[in-house]
Amino acid sequence: MTQIDPLAIRQGDRRALSRALTLVENNHPGSREIQAALFPHSGKAHLIGITGAPGTGKSTLVNQLAKAFRQQEDQKIAPKVAIIAVDPTSPFSGGALLGDRIRMHDLAGDKGIFIRSMASRGALGGLAHSTAAFVTVLDGAGFDLILIETVGAGQAEVDIARLAHTVVVVEAPGLGDDIQAIKAGILEIADILVVNKSDRPEAENTARALQAMLDMAHGGGSLSSAGKHMLRGNAGTKTIDNQPEHHWKPSIHLVTATNGDGINQLAADIKRHRIYLQETGLWQVKEENRLRRDLDALIKDMLLLQWQQKIDKAWFDAVLSDVIARKRTPIEAAEALI
Amino acid sequence: MTQIDPLAIRQGDRRALSRALTLVENNHPGSREIQAALFPHSGKAHLIGITGAPGTGKSTLVNQLAKAFRQQEDQKIAPKVAIIAVDPTSPFSGGALLGDRIRMHDLAGDKGIFIRSMASRGALGGLAHSTAAFVTVLDGAGFDLILIETVGAGQAEVDIARLAHTVVVVEAPGLGDDIQAIKAGILEIADILVVNKSDRPEAENTARALQAMLDMAHGGGSLSSAGKHMLRGNAGTKTIDNQPEHHWKPSIHLVTATNGDGINQLAADIKRHRIYLQETGLWQVKEENRLRRDLDALIKDMLLLQWQQKIDKAWFDAVLSDVIARKRTPIEAAEALI
Repeated sequence: MTQIDPLAIRQGDRRALSRALTLVENNHPGSREIQAALFPHSGKAHLIGITGAPGTGKSTLVNQLAKAFRQQEDQKIAPKVAIIAVDPTSPFSGGALLGDRIRMHDLAGDKGIFIRSMASRGALGGLAHSTAAFVTVLDGAGFDLILIETVGAGQAEVDIARLAHTVVVVEAPGLGDDIQAIKAGILEIADILVVNKSDRPEAENTARALQAMLDMAHGGGSLSSAGKHMLRGNAGTKTIDNQPEHHWKPSIHLVTATNGDGINQLAADIKRHRIYLQETGLWQVKEENRLRRDLDALIKDMLLLQWQQKIDKAWFDAVLSDVIARKRTPIEAAEALI
Repeated sequence: MTQIDPLAIRQGDRRALSRALTLVENNHPGSREIQAALFPHSGKAHLIGITGAPGTGKSTLVNQLAKAFRQQEDQKIAPKVAIIAVDPTSPFSGGALLGDRIRMHDLAGDKGIFIRSMASRGALGGLAHSTAAFVTVLDGAGFDLILIETVGAGQAEVDIARLAHTVVVVEAPGLGDDIQAIKAGILEIADILVVNKSDRPEAENTARALQAMLDMAHGGGSLSSAGKHMLRGNAGTKTIDNQPEHHWKPSIHLVTATNGDGINQLAADIKRHRIYLQETGLWQVKEENRLRRDLDALIKDMLLLQWQQKIDKAWFDAVLSDVIARKRTPIEAAEALI
C-alpha cells in the first residue's frame, strides 16, 4: 500500500501524487524514499507564497491566479500549477477539506491544476518542514508554479510564506483604518501587495495607506498617485518601469478576484518578479536560504528528540517540580538540565 | 544603569518596572536576576489571552475590559491591571508604539492600569518565552489581571494566547460568511467568544455561525437561540447556568467595544471562568503546563546553541552544499550531522 512509484508521479499520475502527499503529511517513513527520489528533480518550480488576514478573499484570488497562469498569452505550453493551502490552525483539516471541495469544483476540468490542503502539525521540523516536503514532491513531480496559500497573517504563516520565491500579501479594503491591520513586518516580506475587493469604495484609501507604509519601509514603492484610474484592473496596474531592476520595488495591485479584474496584470507581475530574481542571482540565494532554514529546523527537533531519549526522567521531573514551586526560573532550570 | 531594584518594582515603581521589561525584551543578562527575584512572588495573576484577526477591534475591547475590571462592583479594592500587546509581525515595534501612545491616552490617569507592547523576537525560547518572562515580571510586580493581546490569529498568536488561563477569541460581523475566517482550531482554544461591533446588522448571523461551529466542536455552547434581544449588551449576555460547572461551556458575547455595550457582562464572565478554573483544580494544571512548555522551548533553543558551538563548520558546510546540490534531502542531511 505504501509502495508508490516516483516515476509514476513524475509522469503525471495524480493518484500516486495524492498518495505520496498523504504519506508526507502523516510523516510516514515511506515518504522519505519518495522525497529522496524526487528531490534531485526539484528546484525548478516558481514558489509563490500568498498570505493575508482572514476575510481578504485569498482563496478566490489564488484560484483566479491559477487560471490566469494557465492562460498567459506569452507562453506556448501552459504551465502546470499546484496550490498548497496551508492551514495551521485546523488540526482536523475539516474546514480545509470543505474549502477544498468548493475550490476543486471551481477549477474542475483543468488537469493542469492540482489543489491540496495541508494541516499537518507536530512532525519533525514543524509545519514549515511539512510544507517544504510538499513543495519537494510537487516540484519534483514537474509543477512549474506552486502557490502556497497560508490562512491567517500571523508569524507562522509569514514564516511559511517566506519559503516562497515571491511573497504576495493580500489586504482587503477597510482594514486601512485599523492601526493593527497593516503590519510593517508583513509589508517587509511582501514582494507584491494586493488590495482585493477593489470594487469597494474604500479600496483606494487602503492602497494609499499601504503605499504610505511602503514608503516608510522601503523608501518607495511603485503605486503612483497620478490618477486613480491608473491603478485599477483592466486599465492596467501601474508598475514603474520595465527595465531590469537591481532593487525590487513592491507594487500594489487593486484587483477584484470575484470578477477577475486585475488578475492578469497581477499574474504578469509575479512572472516579472521571477525574471528579476533570476537576473540578479537572488533566485539561487533564496533557494539556498530556504534549504538552510529547513535543515536548521530539522536539526533543532532531532536534537531535542535525542536529548529526551538520554535524559534521566526522575531528575527532569525533580527540576520541573522546582519550577512549578517557583524555586527556579525556567531559564535556570533549562541551564541545569543541559 | 542596569541595576534595578526588584523591591522597587514590587512596591509599584512604574519606571523601574518599565526598565525591567526593556531588559527582558532585549534579552539583557540583567533581566535574569530580576526574573529570579520576582518569580517566587508570581503565580497569582489571572492571565487572560485575547486573540482575533486584524480589524476585529481587539485593542479597543482590551482597553474597555481593563476599565471594566477596575470598576467591577463586587470588589472592595480595584485590581491592578496590566496589558501586554504582543506584536510578533513588527520587528521594529514602530506600529506597536504608535498604538501604545493612542491607547495610553485613552487609559491615562488610571495608575492601576499598565500598558506595554512587546515585539521582541529571536531570543531563547522565542516570542512565547519573552511573553512568559513579561508575565513573570508583571505577576511578581503585583498585577492581579494581565491581559495578553495578540495581533493576528495565526498559529504563533494562538500559542501565545494559550499561555493564558482564560482565552478570549474576538470576531467581527461579516467574517461569518468566509469559510476561512472561523477556524475550528481557534474555537477549540476559546474559553469565551466575543462578536465585537455588534451594532452592525450581521452581528447575530456571525454569532449564530460561531454557535454552529461550537456545537460541532464542543457539543454545545451557551448561546441560546431563544430570542435575539437576550444576546445583546445591556440586556444581558446569556450564560446558561450559575451553578459551578465541571465542564466549561464557551459562551458567546455580543459586544460593542466603542460604546461599552456588553463589556461588563464579558468582564464578569471572565471572572466566572477564573472561579471555574480554581474550583476544578484546572488553574494549577494550566500553570504547570505553561511552565512546562516554557521550559521545553528553552531547552530546545539551548540544545541547538550548544550543538552549533561543537559542530565542525567545514563539515556542516559540506553537508549543506550537498543539500543545495540536491544530492541529499534536508532530512538525510540532518541525520548525518547529528
